[in-house]
Amino acid sequence: RLRSLVGDLHEADLGELLEALDADDRPGLVELLGDQFDFTALTEVDESVRLQLLESLPTDVTVEGLRELDSDDAVYILEDMEAEDRQEILERLPLPERAALTRSLDFPEETAGRRMQTDFVAVPPFWTAGRTIDYLREMKDAPETFYEVYVIDPAFKLLGTVPLDMLLRSPREARLESILKDEVREVAATEDQEEAGRLFQRYNLVSAPVTDEAGRLVGVLTVDDIVDVIHQEADEDIKALAGVGDEELSDTVFQTARGRFPWLLVNLLTAFLAASVIGLFEGTIEQMVALAVLMPIVASMGGNAGTQAMTVTVRALAMRELGRRNVRRIIAREVLVGLVNGVSLAMVLGAGAGLWFRNLDLGVVIATALIVNMLVAGLFGTLVPLSINKLKLDPAVASGVFVTTVTDVIGFFAFLGLATWWFGFL
Amino acid sequence: RLRSLVGDLHEADLGELLEALDADDRPGLVELLGDQFDFTALTEVDESVRLQLLESLPTDVTVEGLRELDSDDAVYILEDMEAEDRQEILERLPLPERAALTRSLDFPEETAGRRMQTDFVAVPPFWTAGRTIDYLREMKDAPETFYEVYVIDPAFKLLGTVPLDMLLRSPREARLESILKDEVREVAATEDQEEAGRLFQRYNLVSAPVTDEAGRLVGVLTVDDIVDVIHQEADEDIKALAGVGDEELSDTVFQTARGRFPWLLVNLLTAFLAASVIGLFEGTIEQMVALAVLMPIVASMGGNAGTQAMTVTVRALAMRELGRRNVRRIIAREVLVGLVNGVSLAMVLGAGAGLWFRNLDLGVVIATALIVNMLVAGLFGTLVPLSINKLKLDPAVASGVFVTTVTDVIGFFAFLGLATWWFGFL
Ligand SMILES: [Mg+2]
Ligand SMILES: [Mg+2]
Ligand SMILES: [Mg+2]
Ligand SMILES: [Mg+2]
Ligand SMILES: [Mg+2]
Ligand SMILES: [Mg+2]
Ligand SMILES: [Mg+2]
Ligand SMILES: [Mg+2]
Ligand SMILES: [Mg+2]
Ligand SMILES: [Mg+2]
Ligand SMILES: [Mg+2]
Ligand SMILES: [Mg+2]
Ligand SMILES: [Mg+2]
Repeated sequence: RLRSLVGDLHEADLGELLEALDADDRPGLVELLGDQFDFTALTEVDESVRLQLLESLPTDVTVEGLRELDSDDAVYILEDMEAEDRQEILERLPLPERAALTRSLDFPEETAGRRMQTDFVAVPPFWTAGRTIDYLREMKDAPETFYEVYVIDPAFKLLGTVPLDMLLRSPREARLESILKDEVREVAATEDQEEAGRLFQRYNLVSAPVTDEAGRLVGVLTVDDIVDVIHQEADEDIKALAGVGDEELSDTVFQTARGRFPWLLVNLLTAFLAASVIGLFEGTIEQMVALAVLMPIVASMGGNAGTQAMTVTVRALAMRELGRRNVRRIIAREVLVGLVNGVSLAMVLGAGAGLWFRNLDLGVVIATALIVNMLVAGLFGTLVPLSINKLKLDPAVASGVFVTTVTDVIGFFAFLGLATWWFGFL
Repeated sequence: RLRSLVGDLHEADLGELLEALDADDRPGLVELLGDQFDFTALTEVDESVRLQLLESLPTDVTVEGLRELDSDDAVYILEDMEAEDRQEILERLPLPERAALTRSLDFPEETAGRRMQTDFVAVPPFWTAGRTIDYLREMKDAPETFYEVYVIDPAFKLLGTVPLDMLLRSPREARLESILKDEVREVAATEDQEEAGRLFQRYNLVSAPVTDEAGRLVGVLTVDDIVDVIHQEADEDIKALAGVGDEELSDTVFQTARGRFPWLLVNLLTAFLAASVIGLFEGTIEQMVALAVLMPIVASMGGNAGTQAMTVTVRALAMRELGRRNVRRIIAREVLVGLVNGVSLAMVLGAGAGLWFRNLDLGVVIATALIVNMLVAGLFGTLVPLSINKLKLDPAVASGVFVTTVTDVIGFFAFLGLATWWFGFL
């Protein structure tokens, strides 16, 4: 009863069910379902859940389960396992399957070669549409789903693709070479998966051929896996901007704390830097405590404006929307945006601070400091991610600390420095 | 020469070319290309570029251009135009096309009904695979590309789908009712596009049928458009978390400044709130200026830790990964993460501050305040987005202000309050 009920579940729902179970009960469900258990479900669960379950399954169950999968899904499951466990499983697989999986696993992580599926339909150019359809009807090891047929020469070089709807709509006697799309967007197997994601998005693809260094067709990327890539990369950027690394909802307190600690420690050190700037003006603050009350406002406004400019720049870089053509324009725009908003907000802040402490001069000083800090925020909010990107590092990961450090330091320095000079506290 | 060169460009490349041109030169390119210009390119450019170009094109050029498009692309272009311009164009279109477009446009913005394409292949269940293929070969108004055939009853109710690869692999005499997939994931036309995106992602779809209130098949969503939706929604969340609204790289300084101003103004008001907390302790600061030097550290650390917890919560909510099952666990985890990191960082901060000012007590006070603020950060970092989500508002948009306000206020209050009590400055 359970077997027929659960056996019909979509892999995603089965994955969710697995995650909802206690860790101890998961292997039980898999064994109960036997060959009704679709290992694809393991591609839909958190990494920690997957690894824990694989640990506790007998090796031959895993081997049989993986044999049923498309190669890309098998690779996805194998890649996070410990090297020796993975080796043990690979050795038990029949040679052709082992070879295909090993080949994918030999490409670096997060490349097209890792995400590709090695089963695909490739036929010669002189075949007709009719013959191709007949061939598909007979074909034994066809991939589970596919969207186009690849036309190749004897050396496995790609000549073009025939989308299935085009194949279906062509007369039976049409030769593939006369109907194929020769403007093919192919992906090198060593290409970063993120780059492949951009290609799919830009050219509205559902699948794309993957080629090796010699230009031979070695696999196919399909959009369902690319959707996961696009999502994963966006998720990484969102979290990186907030100083959160590669963590999952199922992680424990200590895993989570350890992952977030480094960024917090860096922030602590830069906070000491900002504090030491304040320390320069202890004498000034002693003479006018109102400055201590107001100084966080200038720093915080700069931090926010800087984060806005930085986020827009990081996104534009991630989407490859920033080139030589417009990078100056964006820097200039952000500085001017800082000026425009700086001036409007400075009036509010200046009036508010002046009235609060019944000190017009204080209002003028804080307004001026805010304008300075907002300009700096716009400038460094763009320059910092652009420079990090120039260094071939990920601007989403590192920009935040630098930008807020600059706006804190400049914020305190501009406000307290101006006040010291204006009120003659030297 | 230019015509053949540019006419072969993919719509995405043509769109990029348009964006790279000066605004004045864009209509010229369109007119030069004549009917070689693929209006699909307009779905690939920034909204401001699209609207500016449409403004300057003669209405009949636009009408002819839109007639060539899939309905979803035509809708995408029409939806942002001014109502009267849109009306003028619709009136010039032949009735069937006008009806299809009007119907899509009648659905609210950002729904499946807006994103669907109204051309699709629907056939009765008693047809065989062979007859269906023959029908496709003859079909005149087939969509530009499609991935599955829909099997419907006479009332246009959906019975199932037949993916093209399945159609191709079935014997000619197989009846569709015997090969169709009846577990169909359909989308209601009034469903939010974001929800449709989640469905595609979860179930690895390439297309999905869209049905009206009566359950009739009215259109199809395809994954290429859903990829744009997923991307757009992630982009919205990233920007919203940084206090940036719906802006584009091509926006002017004033558009950009105006869009970012509201969040900065809100931040200014909450910064006054935090400042007024400091104001309560003016007497304490006068007696020990070191407190003014150190207090931003406590606030800033809390802000960062709160942002980490908040970002993780916002993402989990966006991905529908938080349910009754695990929400308590996540709140507890985040508070404990705050405690664990709070204690480790408090030791660093306490030692650093104590040594700096050669005042052990000051180190103890600031360490304690940090632990308090990190706990508060974990708690409010999760509770704030969860509560905003309960109110059916977007947690990505509003959480940031609240969380950092809380960590600023508590950070200053805990540190200065503790110091006042500990050192007896009352
Ligand atoms: Mg993985
Ligand atoms: Mg990456
Ligand atoms: Mg696209
Ligand atoms: Mg796959
Ligand atoms: Mg998959
Ligand atoms: Mg990335
Ligand atoms: Mg801050
Ligand atoms: Mg739009
Ligand atoms: Mg939305
Ligand atoms: Mg998926
Ligand atoms: Mg479309
Ligand atoms: Mg499109
Ligand atoms: Mg959203």
